[in-house]
Amino acid sequence: MPKPSARSVAAPASPIRRLYPLAVEAKKRGKKVYHLNIGQPDIPTPEAFMRGVREAKVEVLDYAPSPGIPEAIEAVVRYYGECGLQVTKEEVLITIGGSEGITFALTIACDPGDQVLVPQPFYPNYLGYARLTNVEIVPITTSRADGFHLPPRQEIEALISPRTKAILFSHPGNPTGVVYTRKELEMIVELALKRDLFIISDEVYREFVYDGTHTSLLSFPEVRDRVILVDSISKRLSACGARVGALVSHNRDVMAAAMKCATIRLSAPTFEQLGLVAFMADPDHQKVVQEMIGEYHRRRDLFCSLLREIPGITFRVPEGAFYVMMGLPVEDAEAFIRWMLTDYPGTETVMLAPGAGFYVTPGLGKDEARAAYVLKEESLRRACAVLADGLSQFSRLPAAQAAERG
Amino acid sequence: MPKPSARSVAAPASPIRRLYPLAVEAKKRGKKVYHLNIGQPDIPTPEAFMRGVREAKVEVLDYAPSPGIPEAIEAVVRYYGECGLQVTKEEVLITIGGSEGITFALTIACDPGDQVLVPQPFYPNYLGYARLTNVEIVPITTSRADGFHLPPRQEIEALISPRTKAILFSHPGNPTGVVYTRKELEMIVELALKRDLFIISDEVYREFVYDGTHTSLLSFPEVRDRVILVDSISKRLSACGARVGALVSHNRDVMAAAMKCATIRLSAPTFEQLGLVAFMADPDHQKVVQEMIGEYHRRRDLFCSLLREIPGITFRVPEGAFYVMMGLPVEDAEAFIRWMLTDYPGTETVMLAPGAGFYVTPGLGKDEARAAYVLKEESLRRACAVLADGLSQFSRLPAAQAAERG
Repeated sequence: MPKPSARSVAAPASPIRRLYPLAVEAKKRGKKVYHLNIGQPDIPTPEAFMRGVREAKVEVLDYAPSPGIPEAIEAVVRYYGECGLQVTKEEVLITIGGSEGITFALTIACDPGDQVLVPQPFYPNYLGYARLTNVEIVPITTSRADGFHLPPRQEIEALISPRTKAILFSHPGNPTGVVYTRKELEMIVELALKRDLFIISDEVYREFVYDGTHTSLLSFPEVRDRVILVDSISKRLSACGARVGALVSHNRDVMAAAMKCATIRLSAPTFEQLGLVAFMADPDHQKVVQEMIGEYHRRRDLFCSLLREIPGITFRVPEGAFYVMMGLPVEDAEAFIRWMLTDYPGTETVMLAPGAGFYVTPGLGKDEARAAYVLKEESLRRACAVLADGLSQFSRLPAAQAAERG
Repeated sequence: MPKPSARSVAAPASPIRRLYPLAVEAKKRGKKVYHLNIGQPDIPTPEAFMRGVREAKVEVLDYAPSPGIPEAIEAVVRYYGECGLQVTKEEVLITIGGSEGITFALTIACDPGDQVLVPQPFYPNYLGYARLTNVEIVPITTSRADGFHLPPRQEIEALISPRTKAILFSHPGNPTGVVYTRKELEMIVELALKRDLFIISDEVYREFVYDGTHTSLLSFPEVRDRVILVDSISKRLSACGARVGALVSHNRDVMAAAMKCATIRLSAPTFEQLGLVAFMADPDHQKVVQEMIGEYHRRRDLFCSLLREIPGITFRVPEGAFYVMMGLPVEDAEAFIRWMLTDYPGTETVMLAPGAGFYVTPGLGKDEARAAYVLKEESLRRACAVLADGLSQFSRLPAAQAAERG
């Protein structure tokens, strides 16, 4: 009996996947679990999008054009115009979510065996896309104390080898919530020019900025040919299940290569593209997104104020996205998170994402956890009360028992 | 300015892509073009599917589970039951079309640099999936004279190297319409057992069989652990744009690896999965498919009888799918197809897919073309009349002119 090869499909041994069954069991025991571990928005998908799906005029559901339905591409072009970014129809390709956009970008920028720089902690699926495309991720380590902002340029430059073809990051950042300053972005731009790199900028959280402003990498004219923007409607339309994103570049060779990738997989799903078209045709669409961002802003402020009250938790207020990467007053965050699911008494508990899952360097992030503040106010309040109590109880466990739990 | 690498994104230089702009120009000149080149069904997508999309109860369009929405998986399990194939929920994973299914199967079966055997002529996108996964296709050449049935076992076995990990084919075949006999399938099964290969069986045309019967590779118990079935609703539901397919295997390691691939890309589109659920819940769903197959059966019989009347065209009646791979009485089929688009006089013309695009061995298929009989009866009649006239006129061109056109 042949065994499937373990190569590229060997997704990172994500701690969160080890913990999920424990959450399922906890719920079976009747426990209420506050899922601070998931970055899945809970806000209803806009009605205009849903109407676009329901009222789609489709008789034969044939392949959509590989680069996207023309009206969907036009909707994306218009969206960037509203963001102050001038792109043409030829510079936009509709992808099957941001996931496919990053896979395409790595395929375009790299040959098998090439390297990309990625600030860590980073979104763990980046590792999956890199393995599927046989690309190696070289981490740029950032720290909680610096709010996960970038280290000095010379530290990054020291990581560059002849095989380094690109730098990839999410901006605003998942799991860090970091929004890079203009100065940091200028440093990346200079580095890309000096060392001949592509910049793969994952801007799916573009609107989720509460302090300062978001500067898109598309707005730097000196790297027009080097930037590959990856985008998605998943977060800003609360439509993760739509699987509609976009790859954007001013570089014609990049777009030609992206078109080849797109042709191979034929097309992105039709109905969800039509949902996007209808959403962008709604005169209120900007207001709908702004109201949602306002809600997340309030949640961030509330959540951070609640976290500040919990002894031993350390964090810097994130500028964007909807995550807080925090330090916990424990040696092994995963052991604590597991204990909360298996042994914490009472009727409620909290699930966090262990920090180590967002790093590739062994040992980093061991005392960290990521929380997503995608719950409603009352749930956030309860979750933080439970978290505070859990940390307090866990700290009083005999050391031997705590270690055993790890 | 960095140039994107040409590696895996270098999709085959498909002749059909060179010809498309000529078809667009012909239409701009007011010409009616009968597109015999495309395998896109023209039959309306079943109403039950469309109702499933329109009436979907979704408030927050969140990520569907990575292996598929449970009801969609159950619908697929039920569908196989109706086909006489027993599979469990754990043996089915919903993919983003057959395209993703084949990409997953190659990723699972092969390491980078490994080889897969593929009978040629084959669906050109196979080459794209292989390049994206860094797998090499080793062609098994079949011929028109044999109706594209497989060569003797020793010929195939001679192509196997230590790097050969799988055999991949579509069954019924695109572009050949071949339906492998039980004897041929037994030969493949024996070979897989003897030489330790996976069998990747692309059965998206399962129902499209007009002569003989279709035997699924899933029905051979001796290769339960070796078969990876790739499927899709694109053809049988006339729903190419749904991007809903399935990967099916009795091998638990294969399914675990497929699950890792699926997790990396998060989920398949939601609404189209719900369309499939609604379609399978329609008590008339089998009748709907059978009526569609009946229509294709009539078209095949008509189309073949019309082709038989055209001097110089050679073909064997295909047993399945909706394609005929024919020999044309010309030296260079692509030159003839181009001439039909650029110089053929009158108000109508025909577009075929050049045969060479379905082979990887240079020189093969040069006098062949693929036609898809996905047009209505009256259009098929006109298309064949135009094709006959075009061949007659092309044959009377001065040889020098014909060569120049090539």
